[in-house]
Amino acid sequence: MTSVPLLLFSWFLFGISLLLGTSAKRSTYIVHLDKSVMPKIFASHENWHSSIINNIKIEVPTTPNDHHPVPKIVYSYDNVIHGFSAVLSKDELVALKKSPGFLSAYKDRTVEAHTTHTSEFLKLNPASGMWPASGFGQDVIIGVLDSGIWPESASFRDDGLPEVPKRWKGICKPGAEFNSSLCNRKLIGANYFNKGILADDPSVNISMNSARDTRGHGTHVASTAAGSFAKGASYFGYAPGTARGIAPRARIAVYKFSFEEGTFTSDLIAAMDQAVADGVDILTISYGWSKIPLYEDSIAIASFGAMMKGVLVTASAGNRGPEMGTLNNGVPWIFTVASCSTDRSFSGTLTLGNGLKITGFSLFPVRTMIKDFPVLYNESISPCDSSDPLSQVPNARRSIMICYSVAVEVEEQMAAISESKFGGAIYISDDPDALISNFFPNPGVVISIKEGKQVIDYALKGVKPKASISFQETRTDVKPAPVVSAFSSRGPSKSYLQIAKPDIIAPGELILAAWPSNVSAAVIGVNTFLESDYRLESGTSMAAPHVAGIAAMLKGVHPEWSPSAIRSAMMTTANPLDNTEKPIKSADNDKDATSLAMGAGLVDPNRAVDPGLIYDATPQDYVNLLCSMNLTVEQFKTIARSSAKHNCSNPSNDINYPSFIALFSPYGNYTWLEQKFKRTVTNVGVGAATYKVKVRAPENSSISISPQTLVFEKKNQKQDYTLTIRYKGVAEDQAQSGSITWVEENGHHTVRSPIVVAPQIDAWS
Amino acid sequence: MTSVPLLLFSWFLFGISLLLGTSAKRSTYIVHLDKSVMPKIFASHENWHSSIINNIKIEVPTTPNDHHPVPKIVYSYDNVIHGFSAVLSKDELVALKKSPGFLSAYKDRTVEAHTTHTSEFLKLNPASGMWPASGFGQDVIIGVLDSGIWPESASFRDDGLPEVPKRWKGICKPGAEFNSSLCNRKLIGANYFNKGILADDPSVNISMNSARDTRGHGTHVASTAAGSFAKGASYFGYAPGTARGIAPRARIAVYKFSFEEGTFTSDLIAAMDQAVADGVDILTISYGWSKIPLYEDSIAIASFGAMMKGVLVTASAGNRGPEMGTLNNGVPWIFTVASCSTDRSFSGTLTLGNGLKITGFSLFPVRTMIKDFPVLYNESISPCDSSDPLSQVPNARRSIMICYSVAVEVEEQMAAISESKFGGAIYISDDPDALISNFFPNPGVVISIKEGKQVIDYALKGVKPKASISFQETRTDVKPAPVVSAFSSRGPSKSYLQIAKPDIIAPGELILAAWPSNVSAAVIGVNTFLESDYRLESGTSMAAPHVAGIAAMLKGVHPEWSPSAIRSAMMTTANPLDNTEKPIKSADNDKDATSLAMGAGLVDPNRAVDPGLIYDATPQDYVNLLCSMNLTVEQFKTIARSSAKHNCSNPSNDINYPSFIALFSPYGNYTWLEQKFKRTVTNVGVGAATYKVKVRAPENSSISISPQTLVFEKKNQKQDYTLTIRYKGVAEDQAQSGSITWVEENGHHTVRSPIVVAPQIDAWS
Repeated sequence: MTSVPLLLFSWFLFGISLLLGTSAKRSTYIVHLDKSVMPKIFASHENWHSSIINNIKIEVPTTPNDHHPVPKIVYSYDNVIHGFSAVLSKDELVALKKSPGFLSAYKDRTVEAHTTHTSEFLKLNPASGMWPASGFGQDVIIGVLDSGIWPESASFRDDGLPEVPKRWKGICKPGAEFNSSLCNRKLIGANYFNKGILADDPSVNISMNSARDTRGHGTHVASTAAGSFAKGASYFGYAPGTARGIAPRARIAVYKFSFEEGTFTSDLIAAMDQAVADGVDILTISYGWSKIPLYEDSIAIASFGAMMKGVLVTASAGNRGPEMGTLNNGVPWIFTVASCSTDRSFSGTLTLGNGLKITGFSLFPVRTMIKDFPVLYNESISPCDSSDPLSQVPNARRSIMICYSVAVEVEEQMAAISESKFGGAIYISDDPDALISNFFPNPGVVISIKEGKQVIDYALKGVKPKASISFQETRTDVKPAPVVSAFSSRGPSKSYLQIAKPDIIAPGELILAAWPSNVSAAVIGVNTFLESDYRLESGTSMAAPHVAGIAAMLKGVHPEWSPSAIRSAMMTTANPLDNTEKPIKSADNDKDATSLAMGAGLVDPNRAVDPGLIYDATPQDYVNLLCSMNLTVEQFKTIARSSAKHNCSNPSNDINYPSFIALFSPYGNYTWLEQKFKRTVTNVGVGAATYKVKVRAPENSSISISPQTLVFEKKNQKQDYTLTIRYKGVAEDQAQSGSITWVEENGHHTVRSPIVVAPQIDAWS
Repeated sequence: MTSVPLLLFSWFLFGISLLLGTSAKRSTYIVHLDKSVMPKIFASHENWHSSIINNIKIEVPTTPNDHHPVPKIVYSYDNVIHGFSAVLSKDELVALKKSPGFLSAYKDRTVEAHTTHTSEFLKLNPASGMWPASGFGQDVIIGVLDSGIWPESASFRDDGLPEVPKRWKGICKPGAEFNSSLCNRKLIGANYFNKGILADDPSVNISMNSARDTRGHGTHVASTAAGSFAKGASYFGYAPGTARGIAPRARIAVYKFSFEEGTFTSDLIAAMDQAVADGVDILTISYGWSKIPLYEDSIAIASFGAMMKGVLVTASAGNRGPEMGTLNNGVPWIFTVASCSTDRSFSGTLTLGNGLKITGFSLFPVRTMIKDFPVLYNESISPCDSSDPLSQVPNARRSIMICYSVAVEVEEQMAAISESKFGGAIYISDDPDALISNFFPNPGVVISIKEGKQVIDYALKGVKPKASISFQETRTDVKPAPVVSAFSSRGPSKSYLQIAKPDIIAPGELILAAWPSNVSAAVIGVNTFLESDYRLESGTSMAAPHVAGIAAMLKGVHPEWSPSAIRSAMMTTANPLDNTEKPIKSADNDKDATSLAMGAGLVDPNRAVDPGLIYDATPQDYVNLLCSMNLTVEQFKTIARSSAKHNCSNPSNDINYPSFIALFSPYGNYTWLEQKFKRTVTNVGVGAATYKVKVRAPENSSISISPQTLVFEKKNQKQDYTLTIRYKGVAEDQAQSGSITWVEENGHHTVRSPIVVAPQIDAWS
């Protein structure tokens, strides 16, 4: 990723700073145990965990110089993993490893975060389709694992929602600075987990020791998934209208594990553990990390536990695109969501003195005016990489500077312009990341290099060159849309390469959602920080809660569906075409996006509610998949836990997934492969149905399907088919996409799965 | 006036710059003629005027060096004055003076401008009182003499208004850049007058050669008087709500005479002449000038003409207070409006680290946040009179500077802070003008010196002193209110001292009204200019259109009432008490305001509709008043015109005015006077009524009234009374107010007139 917008960056930097603060002497470890060997003598798993720690104390006496001399349990876990987190020295860890039932242990880590017109863009409609079918998500609960929530936001009002069902009472424990009276029929649960932070640094002062959000990320994500209708929302006049979450009547339970003081794995697992215990239907998480092998990736591990208990986990793919293999949260049991644009844009119109009008990107947060200001271009200062020469320009206040250099990021140019006193600026760039950032601290407009050259030409050759810029224009007719975001991480997942990831795309560019009123929402110049109750944010963090909201509504309509069935319904009905009816493109290169960028395509909630066929998978199928991986017994049990201990009789890496991937070797001159997949589809239509196959083979591949017709006599009947990919190409080939679509005869269902053939990459290990 | 807010100042400066540009060789003169001597040979007065100019051409041959050799008529006038304006050399002027019918001539001058919760503050109510009684002003037309109008504003939509009556068709001639199709059933007329500017400088390029407003003043004034209901108005989030004019269903006709290129008397008279010809009911003007004797004051002269034709002229008193005798537009036939505050304030809350909370004034135009920033006080830089030392302070972006110096105006401090990079500022000042300015370019708050001392103390002695400021708070419970604005010009009028002026006060501080979308509405820092469709403005310019709107509604209810009757109804029902039921105070000294500051008090539209008694006066009464003045025949005729030629048989300086003033000599040790007034009141109640007098004498005065009871047997009956002021005091006495109130027995009417005794000042001559 060549350029990361500031506001995405802030999350990355944050994690890094905390890693540096970790004590060298003792660390927090996540310890996985085999619960099946727990002696019956213990009344509870907590007692067992304490006993293990007490044994270590005897075995490893503390030295007088050690100020935190006792190994201490941070959390005991039992729902999504089995084990505990504890602060241990290296010696104590060695001792721990000898304990009966020990499976694995790894250091606590900090987690990075990924970031309302989208309901219209996704064609949600109060009159027909998913919204009325699901009662807008009523009586489904979405667990949001994030930085907490701003309960006073209008997006969390509960007007018209029915009483909270009994089973969800008592899950509001938000802490003192966020009185539990702020929980209501919308925000039914709130909890917070920061023992991992305190274990890392017991002297830390937690500035907001409650589920209250002081960062904004969690509030934004929760309101995107399930915010109530809130009139009169806007980001400083941009994107004005009624804000609403995707599932506006779903309930929200918040699990805060990300604090200003740190974001730790141990807290994340505790949050997930609690959410599953509380009985949430869907969990969504917009955090992740790179370069961690599967068996140490706590989101992957804890999500396996959630999936085993019937809870679908949606997660963001990460913002490290567009390079291949940059994806997070790509394990088969997570619903991995990548980001795309919508048909809305925020623009300013540049009008040159010669009459030329150019529409560019602008998000300057106040309604400003630039009328007939002189336009300056000067080769030596127009890179705008430093404020010093800019500050020397006379009459800058009433002038527009042209900033252009392919070597300087627009964000850096904006910062330099802010330090100077220019009345306005024209930023010339083709970097797609420049068009999705909410960092826009001075009046200006971002235009393309092609248009920029006309502007430079006018500035150099025109007589008294001047220009006007108008701002705060919101358009909702952008074509093509969606386009896969340049920043969105690309598959395959280096945690597990054998499943095509991401699964799907959802809107993740400049999404309007709720924001805490005490967290700065924008800056003007260098020293004016603005507030707003709603903010535009970009990132896969914003895409994942869209899918969580749709999943919640599907769960409401089809309570019997497994997490795999819900994901299948959304994937097989997703749209691979944009609003010009052409294949969805990728913002970084303007070429057709492959399935490693967009998965099955843009989620289509109204179609997902009635998919015709589903590719289902049971918890045992996922265990079988784990069995096929090259894992040690301890690694296997770390993930699958004791419940799966005797069930590796049928290992299979060919899980019943609604997509197909075949990886060829990128070495040598020529490359070829043949890979066979078996799939089972279940008829979830109303009754008898016949489907015929339609195939679009990836380039250099042939696809054979057997049989080519599937006949279902009744609802819930299953049929099998096999799909074989035969690929023959050169080693330099890039990823190529195709698809298989089951088309109902005399019916309206089409059931599409993407096929991708791509060069092999190395997994993390 | 010690301090004039920038945005009032801009109008003053403008006029001055144009005066400097006047050609020394030839000038535009306003020429008054006696129409009664016009030879019958001329088909029209225009022919006569041309003939006069042609005779001059013969008498004064032009020299070869003169580039504008021909004396030229700019406008012919016939409605509010009789005569013309023409570009003349001094020789030509000498020749002109010999023409038959010549009365007077004086140089064209530039005019200075004076500058929505107020309908609630004035208790206007859709359910009862003035609004429903007048149909919200329906089918009354207000002529607005100003800088034009922005026709696209939501305040000028005509939803629900009936067709324009025939008599007003064809008065929309707004020029090319403002297509006449933009006139509608609300904005029924528009015209523009700039020949005077072109006469002054024929080479000038009029940048907006139409009735379109490129300054904002005219749009603001027109929408204050008669703007339609417009939802969702605010000034950057301050004063949010539905904007509405005082007479929301009255029609508007616009006469633009104020241009970016100049504001001239000749154009003003042309505008007024046209407005009267068009048949407007009420004229309002928010411009004026100082130091011009009555017989050269074209607003006074043209207003006399309008009054003679039954058109009431409301005008602003000027913004040169609080010193005595600074008032403009104070002639007896103008309804002179001064400015007061309302019960609304715009505030920010400052919270110090020690918990102390202080509410101050703030109008920073965006929703910003300052949270726990260090607070700095440093005796050498805290005057904030220069940005240089401020710019040296480290970490200024995240700091709050305290600005305090009685020698430096807050506006100057704000400009210095804007040049620096401070994140926020606390301005300490007791200057009332600091609390009514919309110039607020950086985040901060203005607090009183008393509170400021606590803040300085904390900044100097506190441990790590810090503060937070919250913004955009709009309160509507301010007490006391109204308070007479410090900037509002005070009477008596140096144009004519014998009438107590101003007549009334109306809201003129931070009034929300419409604003052109292409005129900057605010600035952030030094280089970010903001747009807004509504703007808060302060000035008597804003007060006058309030009274114009109410006068229009009164005219609608009582179409038979003369301009004097309308004014009387509003004056005798005005409220001299504030919302704490105490006498209205003056902002400059916090003492009770005299009638030379507030006239009769705060206009009360609901009472004005049914005043009980009125003090009427006929055109002849005003002629009699003119006859009593020390005017030459030519001066007299310049004002009264030929129609009054034989009518000076009954001169009287005691016009039937609903207020009383007696001026004592401020010289010597002791001073005394006795002055007798005769008044006639007309019963406009429903039938028989008896009134008894109640008197409050000014200090050092006694008041006697005869008779003390007035008995009316029927409607429209008149009764006379005499009032005698006997004053005995010392020369150093200040102005003192009293009142006479006629109280209806067994009825609800009370008819109050202010009495003022004040030291004599010199009139302009």
